[in-house]
Amino acid sequence: MLNSGADDRARRHATFNGGPVRHGTMREHNLAVVLGEVVRHQSVTRARLADLTGLTKTTVSNLVAVLAEGGLVQDGGTVREGERGRPGVAVSVNGDGVAGLGLEINVDYLAACVIDLGRRVRHRHLIATDNRGRAPEKVIEALARQAAQAIDSAADQGLTVAGAVVALPGVLDRRTGWLRTAPNLGWSDVPAGTLLTDGLPTLRLPPDADNEANLGALGELWFGVGRELGDFVHVSGEVGIGAGIVVSGQIFRGAHGFAGELGHLVVEPGGPPCSCGGRGCLEQFAGQEAVLRAAGVTDARTSFTTTVAADPDGPMAVLLESLRSGDERAVAAVDRAGHALGSALSAAVNLLDPDSVVLGGIFSPLAPWARPAVQEALTAATTGIRGRTPSVVVSRLAGEAAVRGAAGLVIERVLADPGGLLSVRAARRDHPRQ
Amino acid sequence: MLNSGADDRARRHATFNGGPVRHGTMREHNLAVVLGEVVRHQSVTRARLADLTGLTKTTVSNLVAVLAEGGLVQDGGTVREGERGRPGVAVSVNGDGVAGLGLEINVDYLAACVIDLGRRVRHRHLIATDNRGRAPEKVIEALARQAAQAIDSAADQGLTVAGAVVALPGVLDRRTGWLRTAPNLGWSDVPAGTLLTDGLPTLRLPPDADNEANLGALGELWFGVGRELGDFVHVSGEVGIGAGIVVSGQIFRGAHGFAGELGHLVVEPGGPPCSCGGRGCLEQFAGQEAVLRAAGVTDARTSFTTTVAADPDGPMAVLLESLRSGDERAVAAVDRAGHALGSALSAAVNLLDPDSVVLGGIFSPLAPWARPAVQEALTAATTGIRGRTPSVVVSRLAGEAAVRGAAGLVIERVLADPGGLLSVRAARRDHPRQ
Repeated sequence: MLNSGADDRARRHATFNGGPVRHGTMREHNLAVVLGEVVRHQSVTRARLADLTGLTKTTVSNLVAVLAEGGLVQDGGTVREGERGRPGVAVSVNGDGVAGLGLEINVDYLAACVIDLGRRVRHRHLIATDNRGRAPEKVIEALARQAAQAIDSAADQGLTVAGAVVALPGVLDRRTGWLRTAPNLGWSDVPAGTLLTDGLPTLRLPPDADNEANLGALGELWFGVGRELGDFVHVSGEVGIGAGIVVSGQIFRGAHGFAGELGHLVVEPGGPPCSCGGRGCLEQFAGQEAVLRAAGVTDARTSFTTTVAADPDGPMAVLLESLRSGDERAVAAVDRAGHALGSALSAAVNLLDPDSVVLGGIFSPLAPWARPAVQEALTAATTGIRGRTPSVVVSRLAGEAAVRGAAGLVIERVLADPGGLLSVRAARRDHPRQ
Repeated sequence: MLNSGADDRARRHATFNGGPVRHGTMREHNLAVVLGEVVRHQSVTRARLADLTGLTKTTVSNLVAVLAEGGLVQDGGTVREGERGRPGVAVSVNGDGVAGLGLEINVDYLAACVIDLGRRVRHRHLIATDNRGRAPEKVIEALARQAAQAIDSAADQGLTVAGAVVALPGVLDRRTGWLRTAPNLGWSDVPAGTLLTDGLPTLRLPPDADNEANLGALGELWFGVGRELGDFVHVSGEVGIGAGIVVSGQIFRGAHGFAGELGHLVVEPGGPPCSCGGRGCLEQFAGQEAVLRAAGVTDARTSFTTTVAADPDGPMAVLLESLRSGDERAVAAVDRAGHALGSALSAAVNLLDPDSVVLGGIFSPLAPWARPAVQEALTAATTGIRGRTPSVVVSRLAGEAAVRGAAGLVIERVLADPGGLLSVRAARRDHPRQ
């Protein structure tokens, strides 16, 4: 292990944002720097890496050897850099070594996704199933079967799953691992962290969990339209409506991890009561059930509506068909939802000042009918102060953004701290029973 | 100059958040680390500093000598650390060396404030004056006289002003230095950066400018109730209403520096028109003029209302007197403003998830009458999701928070990068005409 000789006091100071520079962490830091440059340049010689990082060629060669040994980079092909000199051997990311596993529990489906270090999707699996009111343990049992299939599928392709992140449709306290509430599942005060660790023992490391709105935004950032955007607010509306706030390439989580609760912004004071206990919340106007009901696709007695992904013949598919055929009631319902969404997003824009707004979840397929209203509401409420309105961009990942973001988060962590992964492996090799 | 030998390529990599560790920046980084520990511990020996930072005693002694030479720290008294050994000579911050100058242009006053490195206020000056509709150049002329007085006052006390920050009541693009709009001053598209640099030539460095809402929050963070809080949203309402968002001890600015426009959150869709072009904005219900009018203190024809600080006999003082005597119309008006403020803050809480909300500006003196309504609105709209409501704290700095924050920002910059200040000085000594 890299840090085994360091005492507690030294480790306490071994940070780059406050403590002085110490040599104990330089190797881990430089491993991440070299791997970062390989990712950025895709295919690059050791000589160029030395030039890019300011490290000596010997140091670069040693670091590359450690990364290659760990299955994170590989030699392959030659590349000519600049006009002079012979072509050099190129180092590139090893897309056939390590992978991240993304899992998702949502209201009407379970999902799994494996993504390799080259950010290619290697396995996707969605099971439509009504999870409302089911015991968390039962749902996690089903998720564990899906996770095992994903790990097998990765292994068949020669990939090793380095870790997993689970997307949950609720308010999660990430310090304690407790899911405070997932109103649309009917869950409250669930010890999600413990249940997932116990229920997914096949993983090398206990899985991490995060809010699906945050992971949806990260999925968009790494695999979707977010790659070309600066700071953005990503709306991940399905049965509930959440938002993921991306600032400088990171999720803005707030003091307790509860930031981005867009669905509970009040758009009509004193309006209809909401499951959160408030009144006139955005979800009551632009949530999937509200829209389906207003469009006449379902009636007030319908308590279960599936997403398009979970049920291609379900009510959302019916709504889209009605919209395409120009059904007036459907068009008016989605326009109204778009206005409500635009009002709530105006508050987000005035407070957070993003470059762009991304319409994800159900608003991605609904965009042709919802987007003009969103834009209109945003323009009315935000232009006077800032002189321009943020761009409104439509997600292509829609409901799949969260599970991609979950898998991507594993990859990002490996890239940010390859030394951490390598030292966990070394410890397992030395003490296989740990 | 510390960095004079470094070439561009090296400098590009000489950062601690991305590039590899290089020695060119280690000295500057360690100067900041040592100064940071001196500030944190107030009075501390070189031996203890070595222990705290992990640096050698020789390195610490050298760094302390550089800081002392620059007037940032000083030796003084002895301190016994631990139970054994002789008392050592203590190093402490030099409160009589360097100071920060805060300046503020607001709707109905100009303010200046000098704060030393020990965070004591050494000079305060407020001039009540109606700046509405006056040319920016004229206002800056008056501000320059106030700045010159402040610099003289600092010099009389043996202090050297290291820099200045100007608080402005409007939307500022900090990259370009242009003030996009300050609706309550009637200013738009003003090249504030250039005007301030030209208008304040007595300063050693061109002044920086920032939004008064951001600086108010920083003033609260460093000198007010914010010292004991985690993440918070600070409301700085006077004629306009703004918010400063503090996350992990930093201001959250957004992609273009326009974050925190709380005053233009819609609390009543389709409500009265606002100066921003929108309708039903918070300012129309809880801005100073709206409250004074609703309370019957001023009527719709009154276009100029002063803050308590600017005019102790003005309408705000009359309103407070009415509230104290239990005048029903006044009490109802402030209660209504509190509800509107609580609604807007609920959106901020749902999106940003702060620990606390701080009532500053006019809401500080109005708190006894406004706070219950703020709390009630917050509880109704945020408790269901997060299980608890953020604490509502009342500012003691009120309208003075912004100018304190402006002076404090200069101090914080010196503490974060003492090497920067020292190298500027060295350059001036070597090339006095620069």
